[in-house]
Amino acid sequence: MSKGVTPQSKDYSTWYTDVVIKAGLADYGPVKGTMVIKPYGFALWDNIKESFDRMIKETGHVNAYFPMFIPKSFFTREAKHIEGFAKECAIVTHTRLKTDSDGSLIVDPESRLEEEVIIRPTSETIIWSMYKKWIQSYRDLPLLINQWVNVVRWEMRTRLFLRTTEFLWQEGHTAHATAEEAEEETLLILELYRQLAEDFLAIPVLTGLKTEAEKFAGAEKTYCIEAMMGDKRSLQAGTSHYLGQNFAKAFDVTFQTKDNKEDYVYATSWGISTRLVGAVIMVHGDDKGLRLPPKIAPYQVVIVPIARNKDHEKLVKDFIEPITFGLKENNVRVHEDWSDNSPGFKFNEWEMKGAPIRMEVGPRDVENNQVVLVRRDTNEKFNIGKEDLLNKIPTLLDEIQLSLFEQAKNFRDENTHTINSYDEFKDIVSNGGFVRCGWDGDAVTETAIKNETKATIRCIPFDEQTEGLSCIYSGKPAKHEVIYAKAY
Amino acid sequence: MSKGVTPQSKDYSTWYTDVVIKAGLADYGPVKGTMVIKPYGFALWDNIKESFDRMIKETGHVNAYFPMFIPKSFFTREAKHIEGFAKECAIVTHTRLKTDSDGSLIVDPESRLEEEVIIRPTSETIIWSMYKKWIQSYRDLPLLINQWVNVVRWEMRTRLFLRTTEFLWQEGHTAHATAEEAEEETLLILELYRQLAEDFLAIPVLTGLKTEAEKFAGAEKTYCIEAMMGDKRSLQAGTSHYLGQNFAKAFDVTFQTKDNKEDYVYATSWGISTRLVGAVIMVHGDDKGLRLPPKIAPYQVVIVPIARNKDHEKLVKDFIEPITFGLKENNVRVHEDWSDNSPGFKFNEWEMKGAPIRMEVGPRDVENNQVVLVRRDTNEKFNIGKEDLLNKIPTLLDEIQLSLFEQAKNFRDENTHTINSYDEFKDIVSNGGFVRCGWDGDAVTETAIKNETKATIRCIPFDEQTEGLSCIYSGKPAKHEVIYAKAY
Repeated sequence: MSKGVTPQSKDYSTWYTDVVIKAGLADYGPVKGTMVIKPYGFALWDNIKESFDRMIKETGHVNAYFPMFIPKSFFTREAKHIEGFAKECAIVTHTRLKTDSDGSLIVDPESRLEEEVIIRPTSETIIWSMYKKWIQSYRDLPLLINQWVNVVRWEMRTRLFLRTTEFLWQEGHTAHATAEEAEEETLLILELYRQLAEDFLAIPVLTGLKTEAEKFAGAEKTYCIEAMMGDKRSLQAGTSHYLGQNFAKAFDVTFQTKDNKEDYVYATSWGISTRLVGAVIMVHGDDKGLRLPPKIAPYQVVIVPIARNKDHEKLVKDFIEPITFGLKENNVRVHEDWSDNSPGFKFNEWEMKGAPIRMEVGPRDVENNQVVLVRRDTNEKFNIGKEDLLNKIPTLLDEIQLSLFEQAKNFRDENTHTINSYDEFKDIVSNGGFVRCGWDGDAVTETAIKNETKATIRCIPFDEQTEGLSCIYSGKPAKHEVIYAKAY
Repeated sequence: MSKGVTPQSKDYSTWYTDVVIKAGLADYGPVKGTMVIKPYGFALWDNIKESFDRMIKETGHVNAYFPMFIPKSFFTREAKHIEGFAKECAIVTHTRLKTDSDGSLIVDPESRLEEEVIIRPTSETIIWSMYKKWIQSYRDLPLLINQWVNVVRWEMRTRLFLRTTEFLWQEGHTAHATAEEAEEETLLILELYRQLAEDFLAIPVLTGLKTEAEKFAGAEKTYCIEAMMGDKRSLQAGTSHYLGQNFAKAFDVTFQTKDNKEDYVYATSWGISTRLVGAVIMVHGDDKGLRLPPKIAPYQVVIVPIARNKDHEKLVKDFIEPITFGLKENNVRVHEDWSDNSPGFKFNEWEMKGAPIRMEVGPRDVENNQVVLVRRDTNEKFNIGKEDLLNKIPTLLDEIQLSLFEQAKNFRDENTHTINSYDEFKDIVSNGGFVRCGWDGDAVTETAIKNETKATIRCIPFDEQTEGLSCIYSGKPAKHEVIYAKAY
């Protein structure tokens, strides 16, 4: 834990993995592409989860649980959906192991299932098969259901948190009587995602629409939040889909309208995942390790006692006790590190783990009725009198939260470019950065740029300005102003 | 929703399923044996989960997440463990679907996995494969890790909540330096399970040890909490296992002791599941539906406004508003039911859904500055002045919580028998009830009784009294006093 990480400038990708492992966030599972989320990483995810769960409950959503097993036949119902997921799914075919004649453990061929079962890569199909039973009339609408579950996409190239065979997420699936209401819901959720990212994760995001080529398999429209990572690449951090009547038609879900007609139900779906932990690491982390925004940090304040003998220990312990108690009373997540390691080791460890504030207390501090505080975001170190602590810490946490956001926003803005030529475009996307430019709206152009540069349209931002703009590739009048970047 | 359920006396099993469906707790999933937990049922589970999660965090446990995919080979490591789970597991063999020449969707044979993957029926094997990496020295111990996840056991005969192919649970897996410490942990958890059952679910439980025949596959000792259901059958509501060094040996997990030796790590594991929801239904439910203990009820108070016209509606709404606000301020989970249905319909519905207190408010109540309260546990109905409400409701909720526990305890005690002959024994277990009797400790006796009566030893209770007791079957001196019953 005391050893450092590979510097970002040397190898960003190795830096990332080093931080994940050395900060104790996660580890590799035994099956290829799987991940163990360790307690510290899980506490971080849990704080993200709790924050968003509160938001959706305040806006009338409820949680439920749908089985992870989906009959294979469900996937044939929505043509685009199956295209999107058929090539990367986990398929259950048998239900029994047995000991072979040579003593080895084999799959019992007689336990073969009549119809194979797919582990959910996402749950539109199974949920709409149930909605068919639950929805008869406009009185049953809207249905605003969410679930926090594991899903599986059998990916070939995996990265801890960013892309794993199994991951944790929330998936909301709502049903509405009108297209307008469903579109409103899609945008409401996008706004909640923006708030979660910016106000809790301190990650500035662009909000906008995905192109036809980039939208979700089965959606009419996909909205997204996109963030810039520390290597200037883009990460899709959350998506909210307007599904129109596609899934209602696929599963024959109709309802009686207020004026006694029959219509198909309108749908949305939306999700964020453990990938957000990856975003937090890459947006805020530095060569010392993680830097966690206070609102989601497992511990906001870590107290490192400095004591060389039992007398000092007691002195420091007695001094700290009311501080810890007072902070907890004020809902500050505080942790005293009384482990066997040296103070220096602990300083490094909590820097690696990204605790927003470190508090050092030694016998001399006790004498002076003060403590030493160190900010993880700025490395600033200063003394503060004990009597001011309970007032000062919450303010300081707010400051750190804001400072991390501002740093990330400045970084993104500095690395977002408006340009004039395709040469400039190629230069920037290959070196990293966002390009804001015109696009003629043609899928052929989009594909050509992708093939030539590996950059993709991350979104059509809500604040696009097309007046007088021409396409960076074809030179034709721009249909949209778009954000281009290489992405995770 | 307004239609009633099959009476318990007519057909207990149909009554149970009727309540689950009509109270909106759950529904059948499309794959055989799977269950959809609907929002109301999920809120109930979530309250149980939150209650227990708080308890384990207060005692130093932390949450994490381990992958659900376990390599097949892991199951060969612990001989008894594989015996216990080989016959009922979901096996992933392929990872891709493709369209066949005739246009149908098939499993792509070329996507066959080299080693098949088992979906966790429980996670001892994968967790101990990770603990091998994480544990080197006594300084790394104890590890007190828990996870809240879905697991799969491919059961043939399923019942909503009680036995489903996939279910939700928590599984704790702890690692210790000494056998004593691990045994202490096992018993600590058992005590937390007892508290959860008795103080939160209002379910009286017997605590004790399982026999060798009934213990967990891979455990040294299995402790359990056992409860009596409304049909006098027993339900195992939670188990806590002392695993000794079995899994440490299977996965070669050793550590350096304080005195510089090497030893295998000691383990515990423990779990409770969505089965507890089934227990709540069967212990407290009656012919009107659910009766929920206030501490875990999604809504503790449901307000049914009675208003025939818009004027009444406004009158009642204005009157209720500060009540709802005040109750929420006092952390009472309150719900106003303004749906389109008639008051009578709503009364039935909330009785079916088991809300502990129903509050009725009509224009005349507003006039008299009072409300009508109806207790779900006793059907008692009474008026209460508005000014007394905020004081009275929390007290009333405590009373209801206690009264449900007392009713269940009396029922269990009345149906627990000490007997003198095997004929009496057979009589009682076939009609339902617990028998407390002597057992000679012989597995042969245990099997014989099981074959002849279908009753099993539910536990060897901690308060057993063997003095002068003889075995109900063999007549030999009793080695243990045990609890016998037919079980779910």
